[in-house]
Amino acid sequence: MFSWALIQPDESRYDFAMLDRIVDLLVAHDFGFVLATSTGALPAWIAQRYPDATRTDYEGRRHRFGVRHNACPNSPNFLRLAGALAGKLAERYGANDHLIAWHISNELGGRCYCDNCAAAFRVWLERKYGSIEALNRAWNANFWSHTYADFAQILPPNAISDGLDGERATLSACSIDYKRFQSDSLLGTYVTERDAIRAFDAMHPITTNLMDTYEGADYFRWGREMDVISWDDYPFPHTTPSDNAFKHDLMRGVGDGRPFMLMESTPNQTNWQECNVLRAPGRMRAESYQAVAHGADTVQYFQLKQSRGGFEKYHGAVISHGGREDERVYGEVRALGGELAAHGARFVGGLTEAPVALMFDWDSYWSTENISLLPKGFDYPDQVRRWYAPFHHRNIAVDVVPEDIDARRLAGYRVLVAPALMMAKPGVRELVEGFVRAGGTFLATVMSGMHDEHDNVILGGYPGAFREVCGMRMEEMDMIPDGRDVRVVFGSGEDADTDGSRVSLVAGLIKLDGGARPLAAYAGDVFYRGTPAVTVNDFGAGTAYFAGAVLDEAGMDAVVGDVVHRAGVTGIVSPEPVEVVTRRYPSRGESLTFVINHADTATAWQDTPFAGCESVLDGTVLGRDLVLEPYGVTGGAHRGMTDSTAGRSRTISQVSNRPNHISRLQSSFIISIR
Amino acid sequence: MFSWALIQPDESRYDFAMLDRIVDLLVAHDFGFVLATSTGALPAWIAQRYPDATRTDYEGRRHRFGVRHNACPNSPNFLRLAGALAGKLAERYGANDHLIAWHISNELGGRCYCDNCAAAFRVWLERKYGSIEALNRAWNANFWSHTYADFAQILPPNAISDGLDGERATLSACSIDYKRFQSDSLLGTYVTERDAIRAFDAMHPITTNLMDTYEGADYFRWGREMDVISWDDYPFPHTTPSDNAFKHDLMRGVGDGRPFMLMESTPNQTNWQECNVLRAPGRMRAESYQAVAHGADTVQYFQLKQSRGGFEKYHGAVISHGGREDERVYGEVRALGGELAAHGARFVGGLTEAPVALMFDWDSYWSTENISLLPKGFDYPDQVRRWYAPFHHRNIAVDVVPEDIDARRLAGYRVLVAPALMMAKPGVRELVEGFVRAGGTFLATVMSGMHDEHDNVILGGYPGAFREVCGMRMEEMDMIPDGRDVRVVFGSGEDADTDGSRVSLVAGLIKLDGGARPLAAYAGDVFYRGTPAVTVNDFGAGTAYFAGAVLDEAGMDAVVGDVVHRAGVTGIVSPEPVEVVTRRYPSRGESLTFVINHADTATAWQDTPFAGCESVLDGTVLGRDLVLEPYGVTGGAHRGMTDSTAGRSRTISQVSNRPNHISRLQSSFIISIR
Amino acid sequence: MFSWALIQPDESRYDFAMLDRIVDLLVAHDFGFVLATSTGALPAWIAQRYPDATRTDYEGRRHRFGVRHNACPNSPNFLRLAGALAGKLAERYGANDHLIAWHISNELGGRCYCDNCAAAFRVWLERKYGSIEALNRAWNANFWSHTYADFAQILPPNAISDGLDGERATLSACSIDYKRFQSDSLLGTYVTERDAIRAFDAMHPITTNLMDTYEGADYFRWGREMDVISWDDYPFPHTTPSDNAFKHDLMRGVGDGRPFMLMESTPNQTNWQECNVLRAPGRMRAESYQAVAHGADTVQYFQLKQSRGGFEKYHGAVISHGGREDERVYGEVRALGGELAAHGARFVGGLTEAPVALMFDWDSYWSTENISLLPKGFDYPDQVRRWYAPFHHRNIAVDVVPEDIDARRLAGYRVLVAPALMMAKPGVRELVEGFVRAGGTFLATVMSGMHDEHDNVILGGYPGAFREVCGMRMEEMDMIPDGRDVRVVFGSGEDADTDGSRVSLVAGLIKLDGGARPLAAYAGDVFYRGTPAVTVNDFGAGTAYFAGAVLDEAGMDAVVGDVVHRAGVTGIVSPEPVEVVTRRYPSRGESLTFVINHADTATAWQDTPFAGCESVLDGTVLGRDLVLEPYGVTGGAHRGMTDSTAGRSRTISQVSNRPNHISRLQSSFIISIR
Repeated sequence: MFSWALIQPDESRYDFAMLDRIVDLLVAHDFGFVLATSTGALPAWIAQRYPDATRTDYEGRRHRFGVRHNACPNSPNFLRLAGALAGKLAERYGANDHLIAWHISNELGGRCYCDNCAAAFRVWLERKYGSIEALNRAWNANFWSHTYADFAQILPPNAISDGLDGERATLSACSIDYKRFQSDSLLGTYVTERDAIRAFDAMHPITTNLMDTYEGADYFRWGREMDVISWDDYPFPHTTPSDNAFKHDLMRGVGDGRPFMLMESTPNQTNWQECNVLRAPGRMRAESYQAVAHGADTVQYFQLKQSRGGFEKYHGAVISHGGREDERVYGEVRALGGELAAHGARFVGGLTEAPVALMFDWDSYWSTENISLLPKGFDYPDQVRRWYAPFHHRNIAVDVVPEDIDARRLAGYRVLVAPALMMAKPGVRELVEGFVRAGGTFLATVMSGMHDEHDNVILGGYPGAFREVCGMRMEEMDMIPDGRDVRVVFGSGEDADTDGSRVSLVAGLIKLDGGARPLAAYAGDVFYRGTPAVTVNDFGAGTAYFAGAVLDEAGMDAVVGDVVHRAGVTGIVSPEPVEVVTRRYPSRGESLTFVINHADTATAWQDTPFAGCESVLDGTVLGRDLVLEPYGVTGGAHRGMTDSTAGRSRTISQVSNRPNHISRLQSSFIISIR
Repeated sequence: MFSWALIQPDESRYDFAMLDRIVDLLVAHDFGFVLATSTGALPAWIAQRYPDATRTDYEGRRHRFGVRHNACPNSPNFLRLAGALAGKLAERYGANDHLIAWHISNELGGRCYCDNCAAAFRVWLERKYGSIEALNRAWNANFWSHTYADFAQILPPNAISDGLDGERATLSACSIDYKRFQSDSLLGTYVTERDAIRAFDAMHPITTNLMDTYEGADYFRWGREMDVISWDDYPFPHTTPSDNAFKHDLMRGVGDGRPFMLMESTPNQTNWQECNVLRAPGRMRAESYQAVAHGADTVQYFQLKQSRGGFEKYHGAVISHGGREDERVYGEVRALGGELAAHGARFVGGLTEAPVALMFDWDSYWSTENISLLPKGFDYPDQVRRWYAPFHHRNIAVDVVPEDIDARRLAGYRVLVAPALMMAKPGVRELVEGFVRAGGTFLATVMSGMHDEHDNVILGGYPGAFREVCGMRMEEMDMIPDGRDVRVVFGSGEDADTDGSRVSLVAGLIKLDGGARPLAAYAGDVFYRGTPAVTVNDFGAGTAYFAGAVLDEAGMDAVVGDVVHRAGVTGIVSPEPVEVVTRRYPSRGESLTFVINHADTATAWQDTPFAGCESVLDGTVLGRDLVLEPYGVTGGAHRGMTDSTAGRSRTISQVSNRPNHISRLQSSFIISIR
Repeated sequence: MFSWALIQPDESRYDFAMLDRIVDLLVAHDFGFVLATSTGALPAWIAQRYPDATRTDYEGRRHRFGVRHNACPNSPNFLRLAGALAGKLAERYGANDHLIAWHISNELGGRCYCDNCAAAFRVWLERKYGSIEALNRAWNANFWSHTYADFAQILPPNAISDGLDGERATLSACSIDYKRFQSDSLLGTYVTERDAIRAFDAMHPITTNLMDTYEGADYFRWGREMDVISWDDYPFPHTTPSDNAFKHDLMRGVGDGRPFMLMESTPNQTNWQECNVLRAPGRMRAESYQAVAHGADTVQYFQLKQSRGGFEKYHGAVISHGGREDERVYGEVRALGGELAAHGARFVGGLTEAPVALMFDWDSYWSTENISLLPKGFDYPDQVRRWYAPFHHRNIAVDVVPEDIDARRLAGYRVLVAPALMMAKPGVRELVEGFVRAGGTFLATVMSGMHDEHDNVILGGYPGAFREVCGMRMEEMDMIPDGRDVRVVFGSGEDADTDGSRVSLVAGLIKLDGGARPLAAYAGDVFYRGTPAVTVNDFGAGTAYFAGAVLDEAGMDAVVGDVVHRAGVTGIVSPEPVEVVTRRYPSRGESLTFVINHADTATAWQDTPFAGCESVLDGTVLGRDLVLEPYGVTGGAHRGMTDSTAGRSRTISQVSNRPNHISRLQSSFIISIR
């Protein structure tokens, strides 16, 4: 992954001796392997010989050499040399029958602000806008005298040009275009290497390891260029099962629903979190099965063996610095490997059938990052994960979809959720209105639908694109300081929930002038007590909800409870924190349901719906009552069982014009040379 | 304000088409307008063509293009082009009879550290000091081997030269001189544009919008160059009525007591505060009347219409993104506009008669910013505002005056307050001693009088310049960590206030060897229990107080209570938070008293002094008891009424050699093209 | 100290007029003086004429001129000019019979990242490693593609090369080598100036003022080049007597046990701490005697007289801005001066006999700073001071020693403590094993013994170098978030301490597979409840302890209680916070015991061991019971008294091949011209 300096000690010479030795060993011991292109960090000689290959940072400083992920994505020298290396590797190892997939670079990310990037940005803009007048209009560039006379005047928005604190810019449209451009540029490096490989190897799937909600890349655009999605899952000690499930679902969505690879996970603690807590016994296994349940066809680890030196030397590994077979972590990985060797083939290739679609949108992410209005705690992925949670707690499957999902595909869902979907690009208004008109149930939240594709406010009243479908208007938005008493109360009169749900961050003041009915109203120490906070609207054959405030968990749960009830979607009620997830295998006519206890204590569950199912892991037939061990996993296969979570079935479009899929569920096959 | 790039698309060409259209519309609808010179942000072509026009920041980085307030004030190209633009505008619109005033640039601020500035700084220093030896002496430059052999060796004190954290420098005298120089440089840009306008328009007043206690400019120096003061008031949710009143009084003081313009205020929330809370119903009106009561002859808004894009798109506006007439905020502005249209003419041109003068001094501000001794929480404007508050709570009018106020002017006041007046420049000692000797009452506080005009400590004992008038000596100053129990107790023996007032930040240990008597002494967990903390001294026919510690609200109130009692100054006792302010109209022989309830609840006031006064706003005659609505405003006109707050009348010097004044109180006439 | 610009106004000219005048005054009034070389800050003309003499910072910015400690230590021009100045001074004043010592520069510190340093670093590396292959191996450079082909590719690790946040680097070995190199470079400037002085003055001792645990310099290496150690002690308000005692012991250790100079201390508050609290009456005296008790032969102050200007103008001084003789602080210094004039000769030249050696190691410090695993609160000097405290509380003398202490010297101690001694360089394993095998008692703690000299992990199980002597293995290390309940319980069954000692930051999970016995095990909310946390192991004739967690004060006290009991070392039990320290005068056959009350209240002590001792300060004979005044100091001289703290006597090696020692205990003789 990071052995470019070893493989190519200087421009004129490649040295595959070590890599040959490693591959020979893998083959001899019948390991499958994923081969990285080793372009995740420049060798020193490139930085020395071609200064354009290094990055210039947000502060305007050209870097010299060091760290990793340090190549300018628009450097002609970098692109030429990286492509050449990828081709050489494909030429040499592409025909190896133990090769499973290609892995380009590593966790592609970061941004560059150099003059090469500036020049490429201007070309990108000219292609997009055609004329400088069109750009000025789109960017609302008259603001603060930013009207450009020529594309040549445009600079990357950094700390010595148009940047404000935190990688924002005066013109948010410029900032967002630069983020799009840099995302495209990084993807361009992927495409360069991918195409170089394809010249020698037409067969093996090609991937790069993604990072769930990573801010720097629009993964929905990336997914379209990747044969198989792979990603790195490093939950924090405080990551909830729901948050982690969301990330898997997002990655599956980026891959258009296809199974993905869990490219990296850690057998034990990380070395880079604020507090690198040990991964307690069983947790790694439970979370590995969670990955499989949500669509992973592999379970892989970083790292096989702890390094003796370098920044990551204390990162968890299958084989620790102690190097012994009797250690806890090694034992857990070996045991899980045994289970997957025995049962993994049965798990591979499953599909998820979800009644709920949830939109995630990198443009909305960037819009949120660039806005100057919201309090600091308003974080786009966090808002999305919070709205995902009430579905997850009900064990209702969710597909994460892009804003430009095909209308026919969307019609396969009963519920569409668009939390804080700030940027409503062309077509979204019509897509949503069509979905609801045809009977769908839609949920928008405060900050959804506000901006057009250039991050300009949609005039005429909030929430802009969704005002008509939601049948209301949000006249003002209050920002809530910590500690202020703002609540929403559901119901009214005697039915009113007297305490209500606490509001944080943002409270929208709603006028019901479009036909919507109130579901909840404000209470507390604010002048807008009694003003509607959550509304519901009939639109065509369907229903649209608008949650005008950032609610607490109970408040979100109340809204989603109403949404799923109205949509006729039901889940499985399980004791907290037991997760139930089903993967379907159409070719076998079989479904597998994974039941995972995320607690470090045993959890009892009476009257489960699994009575009579065969337990895949131990072959027993499950009774009505279960006792799940700490971090225990069980579950069963069922044919023809009533599946209460997928009443209306979505069309699963198997993509066939891709290289062959990963065909076996493997664990711990990563050989990492850093 | 920011349309330079539109008005002058390149160096060879001006384009007034859009501005003509706007002005025609304004005239057609009988709007008055203030015209800005549009130099608040560079166009891209200037940055591209003349790199010297952009700024170099404290970190030493030359900026390329972006944001606003981005011109180097010492750039010859910027000065030439800005002057030319201002002249062109004056030539074209100076004779328009709807023009009310000229507005130069916008919120002039920031500092530049480029080589042009360095060169200009050296010239500035050479003019000030004459010789490098004199500079070395003034700067105490032998410290840390800073003795300069030549002016050419002097650099702007930034992060790559003599700067320490937070724009301080090793030599505080150098840092303060640089701040003075940059203040003068910015003022120089104002003067350049002003003079360019005057070449074409001798009549209309010229202003720029100030920002109350903005650290970067010595507004007392600026005020002398401005025809009328205008300023931008954006209170935070936590800004108290007293703090806001202080800012108005400061701005009136900068204008030498003349009425001023409230150039900007927001009809609703801002978009740039940490938490952009909505401005509750009525608060905008109450604070608008507060401005008028303290001397504003206009009430203006930023912004008329919310922008669809750009950094300020969510800033409050008269016309929101919704664009409707039935919105709350639009309604409030319209209602206030109606009131001002009906009654505004009667408010315009009033004067304030204050028995108390309070010194505010930018040199002392900079001295406090540069000192290395005080804990982080010691903030100069904050200290001043805290000492202003006990006067405000008594509804005693205060004039904010510069340190170099004329002695005869000063003699018109009964009380002089100099909170934390760190820098006692030449003449202040004599000024204060003369004031007290003649019967005045003086109050100094810890950190007052410490330094000379070069920020060197005045030797011989603290508080330096005020030691003799205060009749005491402060031998040591303790710094107080958070949570430590330090108090002062007023009185002694059985009269002692047993709990006392809490001390924070600084506690001075006072020796009474100059004749002063103790008013309060320390208590708590300190070795200097019993040591005097607050003293009073007879000096000539007057009295001087020294408050040797940073006291809490109750402690400051006790000191000020003693001060005003001794000075024979009484205010009006009103229920909190009702503010009472009087504006006098000598030519009409009339006074108007504004009574403003700053609470969001109704407030009752029995036995007011306003019985029989005519209420200006509704024409009724007031009784003895009032009930003020939430954020309610009332008040009355009175002739010959006993004015208990202005026993000894100050001489009001109407400045006549200025262009004509603003002659009508207007609201919402700002057309802002950003 | 900082008068270079005065003494040498330009390259061609020296001007000693002022210095001559000062020296004449000192001589006339019979002051001894320490003369600094004035190279602590560059004059402006050097920065202007030789830009290579200024530093480039971690951010990659070359500085222009300002602040202090601003010379690049590898600048040929700086070295040439500094050496020349030192020589000139020695030539002129070296024969003055009032000269006591030479003082080079001031608080040498900071780092430079310029191209001169880069070049010198490469030479330093080539000398150390011989070949680039050896360097790659040592640095584990294959990590993240850092394999170097040539020394020319290596860059100083800063923010624009291999640096991560906080002066770390991807390759910690590179970062640590750079820190070693910069420490050597600074020492090189010392040696340059020292040698220049020696060319003219062979007699007077030469020193520079150190700063206890200052991170930037390996003082054990520095001590070997210094004739006498001197250091600057500025305790914070929260500095405990134990922490301050540790610093003195460290500085004495750096000087190989010889008496040292307290070069700087403040008579009152500092001006640069976060909160500059006054030094309460008596505290300065008590802490001055603490310095003497721990080995100081001088007590000196910064500064004699408060400066009227410059960054340090409010720093405490003997003579304040008030300039009076009747001030508290002046009085305290004068009184102490009188005491030292009367009794000081008797204190000078004493030695410390300690039964305990504690290792402090700058490489381990740098290793801790570079590691990516530990939570933020894990600070190396803090860990060491916390383990020092339980010895100090027992009034057991401790010598602080380097990791490469001679084995015969080490054999003179009964106990060896190596807290968090992260880097076990070649020889340490053998040294420790030999010490224990011969009967010594050893205490290692979590993070001790982990890395080799290149900061690579010692494979085979933690704690690497000390695994065998400690007879255990630490399989995993958990990081503990704030607020999590982790404890260790000492004893077991009915003896168990039920509540236990709280664990913070790190908890190591111990396997007893090497023969060790458990002393304490984990309890609380963790999966490893019951796992050993502290162990003890018999090894040869001795014993080795391993404390696997960061314990609270009670926990550390319990471990050390066991350690000293087993080692047969006993101290003197005194009431908190009374400190008892003994200095021995072999030539006089006398010991002096200092008894210091660090409380601001009187402390009674019954049944002391000092009955019959003569009190040095007042000549009385002490009884069995003492009442110590607030911050009171007493103590006695004793001959032949049973010294319970030094059962086995260490060999004191008086170093004789050094210039003559400081021969009189002086106070307040620093003349500081800044």
